[in-house]
Amino acid sequence: MIVVMSHNAKKEHIEKVMNRLKKEGFDLHLSQGVSRAIIGIIGDKARLAGLAIEAMPGVEKVVPILQPFKLAGWDFKPEETVVEIVPGVEIGGKQVHVIAGPCAVENEEQIISVAKEVKAAGATLLRGGAFKPRSSPYSFQGLEETGLKLLAQARRETGLPVVTEIMDVRNLPLVAEYADVLQVGARNMQNFFLLKELGQVDKPVILKRGPSATIEEWILAAEYIMSAGNHKVILCERGIRTFETYTRNTLDLSAVPAVKHLTHLPIIVDPSHGTGKWRMVQPMSRAALAAGADGLMVEVHCSPEEALSDGQQSLTPENFREMMRELNSLAQALGREVTGGTL
Amino acid sequence: MIVVMSHNAKKEHIEKVMNRLKKEGFDLHLSQGVSRAIIGIIGDKARLAGLAIEAMPGVEKVVPILQPFKLAGWDFKPEETVVEIVPGVEIGGKQVHVIAGPCAVENEEQIISVAKEVKAAGATLLRGGAFKPRSSPYSFQGLEETGLKLLAQARRETGLPVVTEIMDVRNLPLVAEYADVLQVGARNMQNFFLLKELGQVDKPVILKRGPSATIEEWILAAEYIMSAGNHKVILCERGIRTFETYTRNTLDLSAVPAVKHLTHLPIIVDPSHGTGKWRMVQPMSRAALAAGADGLMVEVHCSPEEALSDGQQSLTPENFREMMRELNSLAQALGREVTGGTL
Amino acid sequence: MIVVMSHNAKKEHIEKVMNRLKKEGFDLHLSQGVSRAIIGIIGDKARLAGLAIEAMPGVEKVVPILQPFKLAGWDFKPEETVVEIVPGVEIGGKQVHVIAGPCAVENEEQIISVAKEVKAAGATLLRGGAFKPRSSPYSFQGLEETGLKLLAQARRETGLPVVTEIMDVRNLPLVAEYADVLQVGARNMQNFFLLKELGQVDKPVILKRGPSATIEEWILAAEYIMSAGNHKVILCERGIRTFETYTRNTLDLSAVPAVKHLTHLPIIVDPSHGTGKWRMVQPMSRAALAAGADGLMVEVHCSPEEALSDGQQSLTPENFREMMRELNSLAQALGREVTGGTL
Amino acid sequence: MIVVMSHNAKKEHIEKVMNRLKKEGFDLHLSQGVSRAIIGIIGDKARLAGLAIEAMPGVEKVVPILQPFKLAGWDFKPEETVVEIVPGVEIGGKQVHVIAGPCAVENEEQIISVAKEVKAAGATLLRGGAFKPRSSPYSFQGLEETGLKLLAQARRETGLPVVTEIMDVRNLPLVAEYADVLQVGARNMQNFFLLKELGQVDKPVILKRGPSATIEEWILAAEYIMSAGNHKVILCERGIRTFETYTRNTLDLSAVPAVKHLTHLPIIVDPSHGTGKWRMVQPMSRAALAAGADGLMVEVHCSPEEALSDGQQSLTPENFREMMRELNSLAQALGREVTGGTL
Repeated sequence: MIVVMSHNAKKEHIEKVMNRLKKEGFDLHLSQGVSRAIIGIIGDKARLAGLAIEAMPGVEKVVPILQPFKLAGWDFKPEETVVEIVPGVEIGGKQVHVIAGPCAVENEEQIISVAKEVKAAGATLLRGGAFKPRSSPYSFQGLEETGLKLLAQARRETGLPVVTEIMDVRNLPLVAEYADVLQVGARNMQNFFLLKELGQVDKPVILKRGPSATIEEWILAAEYIMSAGNHKVILCERGIRTFETYTRNTLDLSAVPAVKHLTHLPIIVDPSHGTGKWRMVQPMSRAALAAGADGLMVEVHCSPEEALSDGQQSLTPENFREMMRELNSLAQALGREVTGGTL
Repeated sequence: MIVVMSHNAKKEHIEKVMNRLKKEGFDLHLSQGVSRAIIGIIGDKARLAGLAIEAMPGVEKVVPILQPFKLAGWDFKPEETVVEIVPGVEIGGKQVHVIAGPCAVENEEQIISVAKEVKAAGATLLRGGAFKPRSSPYSFQGLEETGLKLLAQARRETGLPVVTEIMDVRNLPLVAEYADVLQVGARNMQNFFLLKELGQVDKPVILKRGPSATIEEWILAAEYIMSAGNHKVILCERGIRTFETYTRNTLDLSAVPAVKHLTHLPIIVDPSHGTGKWRMVQPMSRAALAAGADGLMVEVHCSPEEALSDGQQSLTPENFREMMRELNSLAQALGREVTGGTL
Repeated sequence: MIVVMSHNAKKEHIEKVMNRLKKEGFDLHLSQGVSRAIIGIIGDKARLAGLAIEAMPGVEKVVPILQPFKLAGWDFKPEETVVEIVPGVEIGGKQVHVIAGPCAVENEEQIISVAKEVKAAGATLLRGGAFKPRSSPYSFQGLEETGLKLLAQARRETGLPVVTEIMDVRNLPLVAEYADVLQVGARNMQNFFLLKELGQVDKPVILKRGPSATIEEWILAAEYIMSAGNHKVILCERGIRTFETYTRNTLDLSAVPAVKHLTHLPIIVDPSHGTGKWRMVQPMSRAALAAGADGLMVEVHCSPEEALSDGQQSLTPENFREMMRELNSLAQALGREVTGGTL
Repeated sequence: MIVVMSHNAKKEHIEKVMNRLKKEGFDLHLSQGVSRAIIGIIGDKARLAGLAIEAMPGVEKVVPILQPFKLAGWDFKPEETVVEIVPGVEIGGKQVHVIAGPCAVENEEQIISVAKEVKAAGATLLRGGAFKPRSSPYSFQGLEETGLKLLAQARRETGLPVVTEIMDVRNLPLVAEYADVLQVGARNMQNFFLLKELGQVDKPVILKRGPSATIEEWILAAEYIMSAGNHKVILCERGIRTFETYTRNTLDLSAVPAVKHLTHLPIIVDPSHGTGKWRMVQPMSRAALAAGADGLMVEVHCSPEEALSDGQQSLTPENFREMMRELNSLAQALGREVTGGTL
């Protein structure tokens, strides 16, 4: 951390700042420039963050220098993390996994048929929401426990492990009983109590990026889960909120190489929420793969126009098969693999 | 809602869309233009939102026309809502209330002394966090129940009603026992399970705007609380996330007249989080008042540079007194009142 | 500037960076921490900005410390700048000036009548566009020289100095012949050739903030004009582009105290473009004044629904008079003055 | 366009709006719902945009329905546009072109050597700035005419056509004399006078997206050039400004399929400015290609750490060769071609 003093800071201001930091046990370097003094601080970055140095008289601003996360960073663990979902399904390795399924579980026929379709096309995990976060209280809120049971049935019939969202900390035991992977939605990325609880569960967690979260804040949210004990965290880019209104969100694919540079955690991409338009899912899936993503999460519905939520961004099974064929040939050119499928 | 068909949509596409909507019971108007057809839909807007018309073949886009909220809107209730906190303290009327206190409760001496200071300067409610949402798991997380007890003690000693944040739905009974007003933080604005629970509590709720929430989404979050039974909702603008980095957030004061135009609910402004810099709290408090805010929420700390969180945006008691003097004369010019104070 | 080396930078990388900087004549401070080295640099900030230190091997990132502007900053000039428009009209002093008029000059009757209305209500400058920047090539582009002549006529009939936009550097002599103040529109804030030319003109310049310009970039744009010789620059906040769609832009009133803290230049606010809705102009004008603005720029049209551009954000003369009455009483409470008017 | 009347609009308000629109020659459809009236308008969209219907009493809001551009849209021209740069070099066809070179032309040795390197690696056009838009007036502003001459020399020595930026309308004859393609920088995307002049030049134009321009505004900027006569427009995505600070801009690759859906114009991507970090150029180039881009524009410098501008985002020739090898194999998998190169 660097403390920049204002150009009219008095000597006593500088001393007061330095004394406070020394008292806290930090090593300091004072650079007295022509126009102002700058104090460099060396020591435990986490503890430093808590001090309100900017509130001290004579201080112009405080500039952070180092990443504020530990367990998620390369300094802590120099090899890439590979998260095992079930034996044989690992996210973060050579194989790129495609997680597919409907936005929401609606009924038995719907989830079973779509599960079979996506499995046949090469998906290796099934997604489906039983609890649905909706902007309006008047929209469909999900089948809840019934939805979880239908997901378990779809898993029995297809063998696909199940990814589903956990919205409320009180439902954690229930959802964890049925799910193979617990998903934290974008709106809950900084629901810190939920993150702490997920740190104590022995299940992989997919942590979606909040719509206005910086990459750093997102990794800090992963750090919440990790520092509570669960290191099986998979990051998921799903678009950020910008001024552009043509797409539902702006899919930030730069986050893929950025996350790879900053952490050892795997990252997947959700082009369905990231764009909000089914026509864009195919090209953006290809782009995500080419950018280096370890997986994709895609919404598929047997009849999108009948979907109870997010139909406008869901692929039909036919579109999904076409997408998988494209991804297969692309993966080869990139030295990776998109498995599965009996096509 | 308006459905715009693509310029190459076939007659059968148009018919299919119209048949589906008629089946759902909506009245329709078809406008066949030179280049494309447009279908206008009249009926229950809430139910319409759930249909995935955009996923139907031949559809270019769907354009919403009406506000998606009901209870919060003027159509439902044509008089301004005034929320009684305790007898004699009402937010939404002529009087502008100033809620002041530290970001976090730290210890007895701290909270009692600051409570007395802000009361003396004219604050009519005390704020203080017992549970703190922090980006980093390594930052101070709040005193929890001990903090709540200290707030209750400060209320006894000063008579000021207490505003504090509820972060986890499991703590609701505990927090509601101590607080006069429950605050939902920006990061929890779309924690829908929490909102639904707050709808069943007989306490006023301050609902902070999420950092990337549109005004419409924010009012819809209020609608979650209201539709579950609690109509005592106070909106709080606290800055949105933009590209500007000089301020912590961009305080969107336009939200004040916008909210007044769209809803009957009262709105207050938090210039401390909204700017992140104590130097800006005074001018932005004046601006919020002039824009028509019904109250202000301001961080005050007896020694900001020792604060365990957000010291850089906290006023000293002296600065706070100066701010209150300014607001008093400003309020008169605006035909309002900022009460209290023995100054 | 601070250079942060990556945690696996080799000793030779550090030496190479330091040698390069020494060769350029900078004083350096090396801080060797536990996990990485940090190099502090002292010297001419402007020259430093041109070096691509981040491209050198072993460098993690470069963190700027100081403001990159000189002439606009308090270090260079410790008193507030007051810009004289014509004798007796000074922006930046105690008096708050209101610049009012139509978005575009449309015809003689329109500009003369509105000029008389705004003068009577207390405006001290007249605005009106002769060259209009429009997103679509099919929208009205302005009356060009005819418009300038009509503005001059309105000045003769009312005595109000004239503010008008300069869009194209080739028109500068023409526009400067008629205008008392040259306005640079938001889209041209970084039209550097235009800025350099304005630096050589002896007329005050109103520099609007670009829709995605940080406060720092905006002040640097002022620095372009100032470094070319013209120090009569007035900054104008007119809203930035964010995700919010209810308003046309998000008026960033925090920019007022921010600009006052960073520079000695005066700042005015344009709530018409800043909100895009005439209903919001009144409250946001009050808020801008309370935040400390030195002036306001407001669109007024005698029949907004007939306006050739921006009618939806224009006040009627009646609304404008009401606004001026409000501002007058507000200004008194703030220790300032909004002059003029025969009301 | 749809006019939504407010819920308390009177009958006479509705009639006044309808009469005005009828007088202007539009066909109307009135839908009288339970809570409010909605008026649908059919007719020339361009002319409609100029009316300030929102300013009329009783109007809640006006909702645009159709795209506001004509010449750039599929309605006007149903085949993809292929822009011929020089015989044999066509952007918009099967072949994906890579435009490479330094940010700025610095001297003869620099531009010639880098031109040879990028040609050898497979680039088919050379980029290099002679006029440089820089945020600070104290940064290197380009070699101007000398730079143009050096670009011409590099073209003679390598055969590569030259792309360079036109910043000032007064320099257009000069720049057009030397350049094969004229580039409009992001900051000039809405410099409407420049766009109109470019419409009268018989040279292809690369139009960069403004940092806060929506896709629609960007296409409207192309429409300015096209409506003035020049249809050889190539769009270039180079990142938009968002809250994320890890990258210089947020590269919006969704713009690629969006532009393909909305227009017949070709689109290329600039991952150097789009990310601001050389480490991210390779993965984002792959992603752009996979998303469907017709070309790439990449900064290459023989010694990036010595570059006079943008060194931190420039590839070395070695990195560039590696990137080209990757793009070649990727292009094959996608059914496209990245040509050239003697590697």
